[in-house]
Amino acid sequence: MPLDPNATTVVSAMRNVPDFAHGLVRDVRVRWALEEIARPYRTELYEGMQPRPDEYRQWQPFGQIPAFRDERVELFESGAILLYLGQDDERLLPRDAQARWRATAWLIAALNSVEPMLMQIVSLDIFHAGKDWAKEARPAALEFADMRLKSVSDALGDEEWIAGGFTVADIMLVTVLRNVRHTDIVAGFPNLAAYQARGEARPAFRQALADQAAELGPPISMKELA
Amino acid sequence: MPLDPNATTVVSAMRNVPDFAHGLVRDVRVRWALEEIARPYRTELYEGMQPRPDEYRQWQPFGQIPAFRDERVELFESGAILLYLGQDDERLLPRDAQARWRATAWLIAALNSVEPMLMQIVSLDIFHAGKDWAKEARPAALEFADMRLKSVSDALGDEEWIAGGFTVADIMLVTVLRNVRHTDIVAGFPNLAAYQARGEARPAFRQALADQAAELGPPISMKELA
Repeated sequence: MPLDPNATTVVSAMRNVPDFAHGLVRDVRVRWALEEIARPYRTELYEGMQPRPDEYRQWQPFGQIPAFRDERVELFESGAILLYLGQDDERLLPRDAQARWRATAWLIAALNSVEPMLMQIVSLDIFHAGKDWAKEARPAALEFADMRLKSVSDALGDEEWIAGGFTVADIMLVTVLRNVRHTDIVAGFPNLAAYQARGEARPAFRQALADQAAELGPPISMKELA
Repeated sequence: MPLDPNATTVVSAMRNVPDFAHGLVRDVRVRWALEEIARPYRTELYEGMQPRPDEYRQWQPFGQIPAFRDERVELFESGAILLYLGQDDERLLPRDAQARWRATAWLIAALNSVEPMLMQIVSLDIFHAGKDWAKEARPAALEFADMRLKSVSDALGDEEWIAGGFTVADIMLVTVLRNVRHTDIVAGFPNLAAYQARGEARPAFRQALADQAAELGPPISMKELA
């Protein structure tokens, strides 16, 4: 059981966030990777609905969650943390150069060629819900998101994982796809929907999600915030 | 002079693109890194205004530019290519673990925590120019972009480069900032504007840009496309 109050590996996480964010806060990516390799860690919790304290910016310059440290390094950005954890463990990132760099390419594709287009949908549907301009902006945003998911779907084909065996690229891509769980966008690509479900069924993901949920506390409804 | 028709290192690039994209196509990031280490490469050119051929998707699943190959690997995503080039050359990525992972974190931050917010401005101003909803969407997009640039500006402070000495994180961050050159957004942060100019003044960048421009051909105006 990786959560361990005496661990020297530390991940920042949140408590008290709105319900739309439950299960999506990005520390779940790091927790998932740590569960896959059974590496003990502890969390440092920050209030989700308040700006992070100024000192936190020394660790995470944007004030975002997660940040990470262990005996060797202190770093931020879930993508960088996953690559760091992968460098020493072939259960997360293969040793063979071609396989390793293909997985790295897919991890970065998930962050830069897929997630921004999905977050645009989240922005329109959740952060700008009810605004007329958001309604008018949505068809073009949806078309862009669909185009990118079609490329991922074509690349995945009948394979189980996106870059050979299971890697950090899958942790990234599955959690990126989860961002639009309030829509049927992923369902439009049955092989991607099955891929996402396959990732979410892994015991390491389920444990990571349960541990995150326990620390987040009860969901705050958007109505309470309004 | 890295451009060499017999080189075994290959980068995909474009010819014939609209003027707004001149100097911004992302192969310039890879060319820049290769110039910094004087590593010979050749290009494979694709028409900018046509979908890439189906075979190209085997190399770059999204049909984007650039893709990369050498004797060892074939990969895609400019971020992954820069990390790959950095792994073996400390002029691009330091050996020390903390310094290396801090640079990696900043490269990924540029791609996931900065570029999407700047590309949203590009999308509204260029791809959706003249639409009423784009005008209404802009203030919130600008506020988000400004917030992220303020974090980068605060983190940079009086330093010359974003993560210690010059690294691939600077190649990424400088080229990300260039995306909004049609606005005064970066100028609102004088230390960031100076940082961008410092990057653009490096001989390796200037050579990369000149070589890219020579292969792109004359700019196509947006009016010709309309």
